[in-house]
Amino acid sequence: MTPFAAIFVPEEYREAVSDDAWVTAMLEFEAALASACAEVGLILAAHAELIADACASGTFPAEALAEEGRSSGIPVTPLVKRLRAEVAEPAASSVHLGATSQDVVDTAAMLVAARTIDLLLADLTAVAHLVAALAREHRSTPIAGRTLLQQAVPTTFGAKCAVWLIAALDARAELARVREERLAVQLGGAAGTIGPLGPDGTRVLTLVAQRLGLAEPVVPWHTDRTRIAQVGSALALAAGVVEKIGLDVALLAQTEVGEVAEADAGGSSAMPQKQNPVGATVTRACARLVRGHALVLTESLGQEHERATGAWHAEWAALAGALAFTGGAVSSARRTLSGLRVHTERMRSNLDLTRGAITSERVATALAASIGRERADEVIGTAAKRSSASGRALRTELLDDPEVALPDEELERLLDPATYLGSAEAFVDRALEAYGDGP
Amino acid sequence: MTPFAAIFVPEEYREAVSDDAWVTAMLEFEAALASACAEVGLILAAHAELIADACASGTFPAEALAEEGRSSGIPVTPLVKRLRAEVAEPAASSVHLGATSQDVVDTAAMLVAARTIDLLLADLTAVAHLVAALAREHRSTPIAGRTLLQQAVPTTFGAKCAVWLIAALDARAELARVREERLAVQLGGAAGTIGPLGPDGTRVLTLVAQRLGLAEPVVPWHTDRTRIAQVGSALALAAGVVEKIGLDVALLAQTEVGEVAEADAGGSSAMPQKQNPVGATVTRACARLVRGHALVLTESLGQEHERATGAWHAEWAALAGALAFTGGAVSSARRTLSGLRVHTERMRSNLDLTRGAITSERVATALAASIGRERADEVIGTAAKRSSASGRALRTELLDDPEVALPDEELERLLDPATYLGSAEAFVDRALEAYGDGP
Amino acid sequence: MTPFAAIFVPEEYREAVSDDAWVTAMLEFEAALASACAEVGLILAAHAELIADACASGTFPAEALAEEGRSSGIPVTPLVKRLRAEVAEPAASSVHLGATSQDVVDTAAMLVAARTIDLLLADLTAVAHLVAALAREHRSTPIAGRTLLQQAVPTTFGAKCAVWLIAALDARAELARVREERLAVQLGGAAGTIGPLGPDGTRVLTLVAQRLGLAEPVVPWHTDRTRIAQVGSALALAAGVVEKIGLDVALLAQTEVGEVAEADAGGSSAMPQKQNPVGATVTRACARLVRGHALVLTESLGQEHERATGAWHAEWAALAGALAFTGGAVSSARRTLSGLRVHTERMRSNLDLTRGAITSERVATALAASIGRERADEVIGTAAKRSSASGRALRTELLDDPEVALPDEELERLLDPATYLGSAEAFVDRALEAYGDGP
Amino acid sequence: MTPFAAIFVPEEYREAVSDDAWVTAMLEFEAALASACAEVGLILAAHAELIADACASGTFPAEALAEEGRSSGIPVTPLVKRLRAEVAEPAASSVHLGATSQDVVDTAAMLVAARTIDLLLADLTAVAHLVAALAREHRSTPIAGRTLLQQAVPTTFGAKCAVWLIAALDARAELARVREERLAVQLGGAAGTIGPLGPDGTRVLTLVAQRLGLAEPVVPWHTDRTRIAQVGSALALAAGVVEKIGLDVALLAQTEVGEVAEADAGGSSAMPQKQNPVGATVTRACARLVRGHALVLTESLGQEHERATGAWHAEWAALAGALAFTGGAVSSARRTLSGLRVHTERMRSNLDLTRGAITSERVATALAASIGRERADEVIGTAAKRSSASGRALRTELLDDPEVALPDEELERLLDPATYLGSAEAFVDRALEAYGDGP
Repeated sequence: MTPFAAIFVPEEYREAVSDDAWVTAMLEFEAALASACAEVGLILAAHAELIADACASGTFPAEALAEEGRSSGIPVTPLVKRLRAEVAEPAASSVHLGATSQDVVDTAAMLVAARTIDLLLADLTAVAHLVAALAREHRSTPIAGRTLLQQAVPTTFGAKCAVWLIAALDARAELARVREERLAVQLGGAAGTIGPLGPDGTRVLTLVAQRLGLAEPVVPWHTDRTRIAQVGSALALAAGVVEKIGLDVALLAQTEVGEVAEADAGGSSAMPQKQNPVGATVTRACARLVRGHALVLTESLGQEHERATGAWHAEWAALAGALAFTGGAVSSARRTLSGLRVHTERMRSNLDLTRGAITSERVATALAASIGRERADEVIGTAAKRSSASGRALRTELLDDPEVALPDEELERLLDPATYLGSAEAFVDRALEAYGDGP
Repeated sequence: MTPFAAIFVPEEYREAVSDDAWVTAMLEFEAALASACAEVGLILAAHAELIADACASGTFPAEALAEEGRSSGIPVTPLVKRLRAEVAEPAASSVHLGATSQDVVDTAAMLVAARTIDLLLADLTAVAHLVAALAREHRSTPIAGRTLLQQAVPTTFGAKCAVWLIAALDARAELARVREERLAVQLGGAAGTIGPLGPDGTRVLTLVAQRLGLAEPVVPWHTDRTRIAQVGSALALAAGVVEKIGLDVALLAQTEVGEVAEADAGGSSAMPQKQNPVGATVTRACARLVRGHALVLTESLGQEHERATGAWHAEWAALAGALAFTGGAVSSARRTLSGLRVHTERMRSNLDLTRGAITSERVATALAASIGRERADEVIGTAAKRSSASGRALRTELLDDPEVALPDEELERLLDPATYLGSAEAFVDRALEAYGDGP
Repeated sequence: MTPFAAIFVPEEYREAVSDDAWVTAMLEFEAALASACAEVGLILAAHAELIADACASGTFPAEALAEEGRSSGIPVTPLVKRLRAEVAEPAASSVHLGATSQDVVDTAAMLVAARTIDLLLADLTAVAHLVAALAREHRSTPIAGRTLLQQAVPTTFGAKCAVWLIAALDARAELARVREERLAVQLGGAAGTIGPLGPDGTRVLTLVAQRLGLAEPVVPWHTDRTRIAQVGSALALAAGVVEKIGLDVALLAQTEVGEVAEADAGGSSAMPQKQNPVGATVTRACARLVRGHALVLTESLGQEHERATGAWHAEWAALAGALAFTGGAVSSARRTLSGLRVHTERMRSNLDLTRGAITSERVATALAASIGRERADEVIGTAAKRSSASGRALRTELLDDPEVALPDEELERLLDPATYLGSAEAFVDRALEAYGDGP
Repeated sequence: MTPFAAIFVPEEYREAVSDDAWVTAMLEFEAALASACAEVGLILAAHAELIADACASGTFPAEALAEEGRSSGIPVTPLVKRLRAEVAEPAASSVHLGATSQDVVDTAAMLVAARTIDLLLADLTAVAHLVAALAREHRSTPIAGRTLLQQAVPTTFGAKCAVWLIAALDARAELARVREERLAVQLGGAAGTIGPLGPDGTRVLTLVAQRLGLAEPVVPWHTDRTRIAQVGSALALAAGVVEKIGLDVALLAQTEVGEVAEADAGGSSAMPQKQNPVGATVTRACARLVRGHALVLTESLGQEHERATGAWHAEWAALAGALAFTGGAVSSARRTLSGLRVHTERMRSNLDLTRGAITSERVATALAASIGRERADEVIGTAAKRSSASGRALRTELLDDPEVALPDEELERLLDPATYLGSAEAFVDRALEAYGDGP
């Protein structure tokens, strides 16, 4: 139901959220539960082993589980039935002891999330690495700073990358935090009391968490969906951060700007001049889809009593979709940044498009000392308008104005965009330092 | 990437939005385009036939197209390449004449939408039929009207169904309208001028639209996504309307309310008393997912220039998802309503839970004539509180109050919920009449 | 709670959705209800007149109603109390007869929506007018068609405007349809039966609808929120359509593109060269906010039983916000388009940026006749790459290639972007014709 | 533009996000900037003092700033103009040195967020306190655990509250973390280089952050909106957590369930029996609105270059709305929980509605030892159906079944819901322990 998914989402991500990955994770839960129950003496160790073997070797086709699950609305009923048939009595009665369907699916969701987030962290780390390298290399490369899509004042391409870098690091940190602290096992039984486990309930919970490498929750979280919502938010954050990079790349790659190009920019057979920013396009598409899915996860916080009528079930597709498309966004950003062609000469020549006006802020600051800031702005504004109309350089227009009591040399210096970089390089250094502290 | 999709979305819907369905529709476009170009003399009729044959019989595996489409970000480049190879030159040069990738994908999206909406209209019609039958049968069946989840005044179950019916009819009408008026062919070429078709552009457009049974747009709509947004809104509307039915059914089916039950209510093996409203649950889950997808479609209105960097590409998965999950929501609602068990005796007994207070509005209206409305409300309020504390009937408490100058018989009549139905039955009749005008 | 609202939303829209506008509309409902009840004989005509007078002249401060409404969660309880106090008994008992709070608020919401949509339709009509004028004037003005932010093939600025025009017309039509057909009166009483009105319920409903100039619903729609969701969708559509215009204007106004500028482009005192597309910026900001509000309205379809616990209440702010910010988006687009400066010479010079490659599609189509389409694409692709590297014109590079068996003159003709406009002008004509049929 | 805001949002929150609060925060920024510039010697200390005085005492009416800001799309241009006029030259030229409008608005947004989040943390702490008290008091109070709105197995009301508590603590921790780590000052100047400050840029940044008590960012974050998105997510989380409490309260307060009631449950004058869960209703309404606003903030991650055309501007209303309505949600939940009436006897009697079936899981677990789990489920399922049809107790039906080889006394024990609480109490203890570690 996701047309041409391979265009957007690399295979490793598609596999990580596939039905098979879910089923495998569900079976891991059942095996861990049996093992934990055996350890506390609730079932025989031999039964637990039989169950673990069946989980590892049995065939539990995801499609059949889904079809058989239509009547109950969950794939767990058929899974448990098949697992019990696989091990036969008396071990069959030891299968799924104390657990409810949601324990199985929620824990599987967390395992699927953990594994996919590991892929994401690797891709985000690569993105940070690539961006940091660009920041370092172009620490002092002048480029027009653009606000409201208008050239404003000069900055450096490295400073632009430094902003991307810090955003990527923050998104990675958030995802790592959620991965570490918020992915927990679920075990609450029918309504959060794990009644069939008697007084051993919380002890089994501890053991299952340990076996699966997930956090142990204080209480069952069947209808406390903060974990799920936080995963969703962290994914939307990561996708949004690379979306911003993709947006900037697409804008910089415009025919009329031409400051960067993707290394394997998709051409069009009929229009060979096109340097389509395909990576950026895929990133931006994926980020939009992540938002749609994350919305469902945020909305899922309101769940009824001890299990919801729908809000929970909607999470499965939303979580898988959010994970997969974040994978698509981040891996595509990585592709965009790998070998990004940076046209520094074009960056430089674009700085001259306004005939000097891009540094008018600096001239105004200098002039303010003699005639006050507001008057300085007016004088330069008038000169800039004349320059725009006449096509002459701003410097020429300023020299014509007696109020501009600045020597020509000083004016020339003030109007050089390459030397009006303020703290751009300092910010690059700060970002690289923050990055160095990181991984 | 949609775990256990079969639980939520019936096979016919999954097929209707599958990659294969998209590829088939894309090939229909190419065949129709060739045929139209031949009719106006731009290519040879023999070439058009070769192309049509190849479209009908060739193998264009969706998965391979997606993999091959990664570099361009679209599946059309490889599709055209394969199609050209299939027909070979000189016919190959007649393939895809004048068209751009987006023409192919957009038209395919519209064909996929058209076919899925036809399924939806059938399911919505069935839902309306079932709801209308319930409204007719229970035109006069008393039930507690509930506001803010509190019993308010009596109404009839038929009146409740009448509200569902009108909503379903409105959602169906909206979907039918969008199906009829807004699903259009796309043909604009690289940037909306269909340059290679020379002066025949708009004539070919007309012919392609006719061949595919889609509307002919006034201008290419590559970045005018009103059509897509309207499809999304109509789907969210349909899903939302059955979500409301599912919500009411789930609430009425609560153990403590017990007024309805789904015919094949999913039990739990370990908890046989449960009458899980599985159909309603699936409907509600699907509706949430539709909203997430529809959001992406609404957001897609802002697309750059003549083709967007991502906003367009995000539509594919969002549209397919919205169509499929609306199918899941509506078909599941149909399942819920088919043979819904209606426990009229429980509806009746629940009306007595407040010991008469559910008709206090009527008593207050009667009392107002003698002591004014505000005082009447106060008097009855006090009596209701006494009744609640004492456990005695409201009637007993009212009889004790000298201000209530109503004879016992009159009070008995006023306090009978089964006769305080106001216009409930009239509204049922109006809804059924509107329905009769409908299909 | 909307910082600096005046920057985004013009006063007329702010007033149209203000608390005062809501209170006025609520009082109109009460007056119309009393008048209708009098007509059918349920209350005295003299009482109805007293009520109407009090509604017209009484003081019902919105802020006080909100404060007093905190305990009930609605402003109607205090409004009715104040209105009853104003008219005193015996007329007081005739106030609000049969109605419930939601009848008052829902009807007021519809009146507020109707009046704001009237403003929107006027602004959208102005937008369509301005865009149509641009389309007409620039029917044949060459401009680069841009896809994925890359120059693709030439089109005309008029054709671009034609796409905007059709989108604007469709959004206007949708809004007009919703205004006409979906804005209905609400009158259902406590739970949809209007019990206190006895057998006169539906007759009073008809009369109230007539008095207020709103549609008469078949049944009460307290929890059938299709109307509200459709208003929300229509608003998001309208906002999204002008968002696309704003996006294109902002892109065309970039320093490096320079093809348009807003007439009162906001400069920056310190950076006089900036031609900030302030109107486009405000439009785009507003459209985002509309989407957030419309989401709440779509989500509101699932409401419980006969009145919801929150889903209904959330609609008020969302509806007001969606209406107001759509007003902001549309009025700001109007401002952008009024006197938009169109730099046709820059459009023309930008077409030369690729040294001829922008018409390579045409050359490829011509070459295909002799060497086949795929080979033609390859030959031109190679030439374009050479041109890009060498800085020489594509024509020069093509002339060097023996496979390009086209005479120089023919090549010159083929490479002229101003004559490769395909059906651009025809599409302008079609759009203008559709517009002519419109208003 | 938020009708009847006082119903939803308490005054302290409305003030905290009001235009005046924004203007005050903007002036605090200007004062802190001047002071920092004086400290590094860029301006005179006397000028900084003049500016600080003007910021503290001058009149800067928010409404006028908004009106005057229409042309630039920001309120800062008029604010700076007025501030300069207030201090006059030569101090005027020292106003706003190096800063850009976004520095002012972003820093103000952070200050507004900080102050509102402090209110939220206080309310969330109160919510946690109230919920913890309920958990403690009702640690062992039996109540039906409900899944899919069906009674499943017994639990305790305390265990239910323990789930609320952990969710509330997690939401509070998240909000506190964002408050502490992510609210940062903004100072980047026109395009992130703070050019006019020369080599003193980052030093001034440090000083401004210190003066305002906000974090110091590594680099300007004009278009790195991770901070804003994280604030939005944390707000949606907090609102969603209390929404779940509100949902459960509304469900438990249903006439047919009757297990809790809000202390000041809003009655209806005409329907005195109603115990409207007004607090829960307001909470749920607010949470929906928060989601709509938070969506805008998540979507805002994709911003162009060094300042966006709209995505930034849209944040203001979305942030203010998200803050205010989270305030509404949380404070209303606090109201709901303050003196929540808990009807333990009704909880107990509702456990008997299924005539013993609510403990069938326990009987099945016991039976499994002798006849295997699957057979045990079948036997009890059949008995439960007979019980449901006959109206006889499940115990009676089980005693009739020879396969049920359990003595009557044992059966009586197994069927007592009050003793089948599993780990419910243990989970309460764990939650209270976690809470104790907390505040």
